[in-house]
Amino acid sequence: MKTSHGCRGRLQYVILAEGPQGFHNVTGHFKGHALPATFLIILSLWWSTRNILKYVCKKQKQTFYLGSKALFHRLELLEGTVLVGMALTGMAVHQFIPEGAHLTLFKEGQWNHLLNWHHFTMYFFFGLVGVADILCVTIRSLPSSLPKLMLSNALFVEAFIFHNHTHGWKMVEIFMHQLLGLVFFLTGLVAFMEFLLQNNVLLELLRSSLTMLQGSWFFQIDSVLYSPSWALAWKLMDSDNIMFLTICFCWHYAVSFIIIGANYAFVTW
Amino acid sequence: MKTSHGCRGRLQYVILAEGPQGFHNVTGHFKGHALPATFLIILSLWWSTRNILKYVCKKQKQTFYLGSKALFHRLELLEGTVLVGMALTGMAVHQFIPEGAHLTLFKEGQWNHLLNWHHFTMYFFFGLVGVADILCVTIRSLPSSLPKLMLSNALFVEAFIFHNHTHGWKMVEIFMHQLLGLVFFLTGLVAFMEFLLQNNVLLELLRSSLTMLQGSWFFQIDSVLYSPSWALAWKLMDSDNIMFLTICFCWHYAVSFIIIGANYAFVTW
Amino acid sequence: MKTSHGCRGRLQYVILAEGPQGFHNVTGHFKGHALPATFLIILSLWWSTRNILKYVCKKQKQTFYLGSKALFHRLELLEGTVLVGMALTGMAVHQFIPEGAHLTLFKEGQWNHLLNWHHFTMYFFFGLVGVADILCVTIRSLPSSLPKLMLSNALFVEAFIFHNHTHGWKMVEIFMHQLLGLVFFLTGLVAFMEFLLQNNVLLELLRSSLTMLQGSWFFQIDSVLYSPSWALAWKLMDSDNIMFLTICFCWHYAVSFIIIGANYAFVTW
Amino acid sequence: MKTSHGCRGRLQYVILAEGPQGFHNVTGHFKGHALPATFLIILSLWWSTRNILKYVCKKQKQTFYLGSKALFHRLELLEGTVLVGMALTGMAVHQFIPEGAHLTLFKEGQWNHLLNWHHFTMYFFFGLVGVADILCVTIRSLPSSLPKLMLSNALFVEAFIFHNHTHGWKMVEIFMHQLLGLVFFLTGLVAFMEFLLQNNVLLELLRSSLTMLQGSWFFQIDSVLYSPSWALAWKLMDSDNIMFLTICFCWHYAVSFIIIGANYAFVTW
Repeated sequence: MKTSHGCRGRLQYVILAEGPQGFHNVTGHFKGHALPATFLIILSLWWSTRNILKYVCKKQKQTFYLGSKALFHRLELLEGTVLVGMALTGMAVHQFIPEGAHLTLFKEGQWNHLLNWHHFTMYFFFGLVGVADILCVTIRSLPSSLPKLMLSNALFVEAFIFHNHTHGWKMVEIFMHQLLGLVFFLTGLVAFMEFLLQNNVLLELLRSSLTMLQGSWFFQIDSVLYSPSWALAWKLMDSDNIMFLTICFCWHYAVSFIIIGANYAFVTW
Repeated sequence: MKTSHGCRGRLQYVILAEGPQGFHNVTGHFKGHALPATFLIILSLWWSTRNILKYVCKKQKQTFYLGSKALFHRLELLEGTVLVGMALTGMAVHQFIPEGAHLTLFKEGQWNHLLNWHHFTMYFFFGLVGVADILCVTIRSLPSSLPKLMLSNALFVEAFIFHNHTHGWKMVEIFMHQLLGLVFFLTGLVAFMEFLLQNNVLLELLRSSLTMLQGSWFFQIDSVLYSPSWALAWKLMDSDNIMFLTICFCWHYAVSFIIIGANYAFVTW
Repeated sequence: MKTSHGCRGRLQYVILAEGPQGFHNVTGHFKGHALPATFLIILSLWWSTRNILKYVCKKQKQTFYLGSKALFHRLELLEGTVLVGMALTGMAVHQFIPEGAHLTLFKEGQWNHLLNWHHFTMYFFFGLVGVADILCVTIRSLPSSLPKLMLSNALFVEAFIFHNHTHGWKMVEIFMHQLLGLVFFLTGLVAFMEFLLQNNVLLELLRSSLTMLQGSWFFQIDSVLYSPSWALAWKLMDSDNIMFLTICFCWHYAVSFIIIGANYAFVTW
Repeated sequence: MKTSHGCRGRLQYVILAEGPQGFHNVTGHFKGHALPATFLIILSLWWSTRNILKYVCKKQKQTFYLGSKALFHRLELLEGTVLVGMALTGMAVHQFIPEGAHLTLFKEGQWNHLLNWHHFTMYFFFGLVGVADILCVTIRSLPSSLPKLMLSNALFVEAFIFHNHTHGWKMVEIFMHQLLGLVFFLTGLVAFMEFLLQNNVLLELLRSSLTMLQGSWFFQIDSVLYSPSWALAWKLMDSDNIMFLTICFCWHYAVSFIIIGANYAFVTW
């Protein structure tokens, strides 16, 4: 008899094996995951490019760098605006799609579309990062590390929500979402370290690669759990799947490293 | 079949579902929670105002700041006295209200009002912070970061007590108190970082907003668990409630951020 | 129905409630705990006195401090020798008392007195700290922070051993030993921070007070679990006891703080 | 009734005691463990020798050190090449031995030799460290702390894989592999600290001794679980074994400390 992957998963396993398996609607999720996935991958590419450029400029010509400071400020302003825009889009999507919450939190004696409200809250915190970005560029008296702190906060909040996101799901689903929560937590940790130790280019690239891992893992979740053709092929209770997904996760990480490295080579060239 | 939110909650669930549900007196708690909640919110507003003032003074005029150093010392002395006063009030309340412990630890072969003794101990450690504040201002040879260390210690102790505070309670009660313990732990962590890295204004504001979160979450606990009219409306074993409270907690956090931000705008203006 | 304090304790509880309760010999432990308890309390008083003296010397007279450097080196040498001596005594006691292991690890097809070997290993690592102390004073080319690193290592090892020390015990026993393991872990963490950030007097005093907490909690364990008269009075499966011990632990901590503070007042005076 | 060592192990125990005990092929593992074990021990000796040499050179003659900088760069290049070579060997072994995966991930409706793919992934990440070493020496514009970051990453990835490596195994097997995962995690933590705080010789030696502990613990795992003569002698479900292995692990650690210390004495002499 095979056992599942952790205390949580194992108990889940025991309970589900005994009781009736909870029906879980999968079609609505696909759209919900593809959007943030694309967003996160673009964000990671953008962050890595900006940080590599900044590092290279700083190393090669001090004067040239000072000249381009205004440019970087303008880029930061743009970044903040885009972040706010993306967050508003995400929040609207989760409210006004047909399966959305339609701004109703409590309906007919029970909570209404709580998973949509979860996603809504996550987008909201990313929106706050964008607002902090914009405020920090426009108001000079604010400490310059504020956006880093807000980013780290937002990531910790996502990790916290993911940790409480998987009630009543099946083993493989839980495992995949817990891994996502773990990456969010680690990215938050790296962002917090950046907040404390400013101007460490490797930490910034590490954060970029972890952000890319978030995006690509979102796509992996989609392809395993919610794509119409594969959904039946995966046995959601088999612990062999856990062992495969463990190394699959590491491969995603390795690929994100290699992409960031290639980006570095491209930018310096 | 829905499952509960963690290893602890889930087992709790299994055990309670089988055995007789422990009766839990709720009326006495309301007063016990409203007091520290109000106290913590006032404290967080006061801390944020003081830290913003200090930061702005420092940035604008070095000379003006040096002149106001005596004022800040006097404010710290006042803060210490108020903290000691609040702690003594809290300790007295939990001993001498009708449902209090009346200084008796062991009565008729069993422990007497242990929850009151828990609260008593928590107030005592906050009192120690106040004492450290006063000592540090009056005796100059003491290291100036002592109050930060004592504060971080007090918060870790609260987190530890909260972690062992919820024996035999129901799922939603446990979850809400564990979240409170988590905030205390995180605030303690931030205070410890302040102790190591002095004069980082953002860490101080982060601590203020986490303190405000503690206060507002105390009120949320009251309104969910102990208010006369709502108490019956909440099903304390439903995991949907856990999922709602997760995002509710994040909203409290977002609101505390916004209030601290508004305070910043108000003070600098 | 009351439930126990954590995942570990709760499962323990369930299993023990079903199976026959394992008989647990208590008389041999009393001597085994009183020795390290006394040792740790003396050590904490000595450490706090030395660190306060060093801090006060440094603050008041730079010249006087330089003159007394030789004295501090001699004291460190003495400290190392005493530590090695205590460790050797402890190791010998656990081997050659009547209930000891008598240097036999495996006897009659099963492990022989593993708990004694556990204590033996703990003393051994404290002995290594003493050796590092002596080496560091005699050989000047060694980095001066070596003893701090060894101390932190020794404490982490103790915490690790305590974590795996309680197989088949009852709930209250496990809880008390886990708390001890927690204090060892925290003391190790503080010692590691001292290793990274040298010359922070408050961290050194925090370590002293945590060491005192270790010692006094050893005595508390003795009085709860192994003293002949009390042993029957404590119901080892009652979760009310856990809730009392939680605050009792905090009181021990508060007392150790106050003693270190009194020591500070005494030394500076 | 004895209980097992943690939440994971205990549940494992309960489940296995009820269900049929999963058959577990042991002969193929011996070769798989002896290779990395030898590799890690050689690596740790090499690292410690290099770091001690560097430290001593730096302390004694500033000029001599500057002259030998080219030598150290050449050594780093060699180290990178050897790491890549070892990683490629390890990856090939796990694919092309008779029990290997033969580059097939999915065969006959189920995952094919997942444990081999796990080991393959671990070697791959060590290979990345070697690549980073080589790149960092040849391309000067790269930040010099890149190899440390990659090493810490590789170690965290190993720890993560080990944590999900033991599905369906027996208690002693799980415990031994979890300890290995713990050492990988701690070594990763130390490497990350080295990345943040450069040129701390004690952290480098600590990493060396933890690496040696990894190697020697690999050998211990072999001798306990997979050697033909001992395999039957160990009862894999007995919690006394856990208690012995706990201190055995500490002894391995102490021995690795003493070997690194002897190496220090030898090199300085």
